[in-house]
Amino acid sequence: MQLTSRKGRFGGDEVRVVDAMIDLVYPPVPFPSNRIFNAMGEMKIREMVAHHHALLLKTKVGKLFPANEEALKMVIDKSADFFAEALGGGEIFTAVHGEPHLRMRHFKVPIDEQDREIWLAMYKKTLKMMNFPKAHLEEFWNWIEPLSIRMINRRTTMEAIRRYHWHEVKQDLITKEGN
Amino acid sequence: MQLTSRKGRFGGDEVRVVDAMIDLVYPPVPFPSNRIFNAMGEMKIREMVAHHHALLLKTKVGKLFPANEEALKMVIDKSADFFAEALGGGEIFTAVHGEPHLRMRHFKVPIDEQDREIWLAMYKKTLKMMNFPKAHLEEFWNWIEPLSIRMINRRTTMEAIRRYHWHEVKQDLITKEGN
Repeated sequence: MQLTSRKGRFGGDEVRVVDAMIDLVYPPVPFPSNRIFNAMGEMKIREMVAHHHALLLKTKVGKLFPANEEALKMVIDKSADFFAEALGGGEIFTAVHGEPHLRMRHFKVPIDEQDREIWLAMYKKTLKMMNFPKAHLEEFWNWIEPLSIRMINRRTTMEAIRRYHWHEVKQDLITKEGN
Repeated sequence: MQLTSRKGRFGGDEVRVVDAMIDLVYPPVPFPSNRIFNAMGEMKIREMVAHHHALLLKTKVGKLFPANEEALKMVIDKSADFFAEALGGGEIFTAVHGEPHLRMRHFKVPIDEQDREIWLAMYKKTLKMMNFPKAHLEEFWNWIEPLSIRMINRRTTMEAIRRYHWHEVKQDLITKEGN
């Protein structure tokens, strides 16, 4: 029976159309308000980005960054510029680097689903270790979680992209201070 | 004016949601009938696949194939098995290798938009050089053109995938014999 049905699937008497397919839908990205910048200030944001990169460099994502120290510093500074602007600091990034076009800027580096998971996990670790203003954690997380999906440009599985919704990570992120 | 509007784009007073996005829609794939196998037979199909691979190996796509001669032969035989079955020869592939799952099987190798263009161009060259039955060229092309898009798993551009519809390539494919 199975043999017969298989035979029918390929090379039957007529053309057989396999439906169109969507690989993945990049979810909406809620960009934060200026509340985070107002609460943290530029220096603290830059420290956060630097800390995140220090963690990333210890993972397999680290190989995606320049080995040259000066080039690496430029990449981290640029990322800090972006975060400072996106969180409400004014044109810190765009005045120097132009339009962000984050997905486009990352095309030169292959970023797969696992790289994105690591990037996000290291942010979670960063947020736990620093004194990120608790009142704004949800707004920040709801931004970087879907944002990180946009950077994926190398698919290695048919599985849907794993989401890490706020309600799933909340407990872990705010537990330490019991708030 | 522009500065003001840019300032408003990032880190304004409220959260700003950027819409969901679809990267690409994999178009429908019309799998061929058994007419091509009936016209060509298995040996001719295997020759076609071997010729296509010989051309591919001379391009930058060649680096995606095993360097080891025996391993390379296995890959080409497997591809020939698939084409022979898909074109109507019965369970030549599935009996030995199981379900095709073409996209999944290609995940281990990064295949970008340009790799797919080369793969398709080398098929066009193969079809021109061999004596592919003219009456079935359209059915064959309409299959491999969208099929090749499914193998893309590395994106390097925001541009839509370039289509090569039959009406665009027809002239070039059938000119030689003036038919």
